[in-house]
Amino acid sequence: MATNLYDQAYELEKALRTSEEFLNLKKMYEEVENDETAKSMFDAFRNVQMELQQKQMSGQNITEDEVMNAQAIANQVQANQKVTQLMQAEQRMSEAIGELNKIIVKPLDELYGMMNK
Amino acid sequence: MATNLYDQAYELEKALRTSEEFLNLKKMYEEVENDETAKSMFDAFRNVQMELQQKQMSGQNITEDEVMNAQAIANQVQANQKVTQLMQAEQRMSEAIGELNKIIVKPLDELYGMMNK
Ligand SMILES: [Ca+2]
Ligand SMILES: [Ca+2]
Repeated sequence: MATNLYDQAYELEKALRTSEEFLNLKKMYEEVENDETAKSMFDAFRNVQMELQQKQMSGQNITEDEVMNAQAIANQVQANQKVTQLMQAEQRMSEAIGELNKIIVKPLDELYGMMNK
Repeated sequence: MATNLYDQAYELEKALRTSEEFLNLKKMYEEVENDETAKSMFDAFRNVQMELQQKQMSGQNITEDEVMNAQAIANQVQANQKVTQLMQAEQRMSEAIGELNKIIVKPLDELYGMMNK
C-alpha cells in the first residue's frame, strides 16, 4: 500500500485516540470496569445481545422467553447510570466512526456513481 | 465531532483519492466503461452476484440452475482481460480499505481488549 495512505491512516488513528469521543468512551468504560454491579449488568446485557444476534444471523427462531429475558436485562441496565453513560459514549463513538468512514470512502462512492449512471 | 478528527479524515480521503490503488481502479473502470462487451459482461456478473447474495441473506434457496448460470457468467468474465483487471483493481482497493480500517480502529480494539480481559 502507498506510504502516504499508511501515514494518513496513522494520523487519523492518533486523532481518534486523542478525540473527545474516544477519551470519553475510555473514561466511561473505566467507570463501569471499577463498579462490580455495573460491570456484571453490562456483561449480561452484552452477552444476551450477542446471543440473540447470532441466533438471528443463523436463521434460528428467538423464543418469547428469550425476548422477555432480554427485555428484563435491558430494563435493569437502563436504571444504572454508569452503564447508560457507557452506552451513550459507545453510540457517539460509533456515529463518529460512521462519519469518518463516509468521508474516507467518498472517492469510491463517486467512482461507483459514475459507473452506474 | 472534534475538528481534528474531521481534518484528518479529509486528509486521508485526499490520500486515498490520489493513491495508486484508487487511480488504477479508476483507470480500469474507464477501460471497461469504454468497451461495450466488457461493460455488459461486468454488469451481468455484478447483477448475478448481487441477486445471489440477496437471496442468501434473506434465507432463500439458490437453485442448481442459478449456480450454473452464475458459473457460466463467471467463466465468460474470466476470459475478458479488461474485466479481470478491473476486478483485481477492486480487490486491491478493498484490501487497502481493510488495512486502513484496521489501523484507524486500533484504539477501539485495545479498549475492548482491556475490557474483556
Ligand atoms: Ca498529514
Ligand atoms: Ca494532518
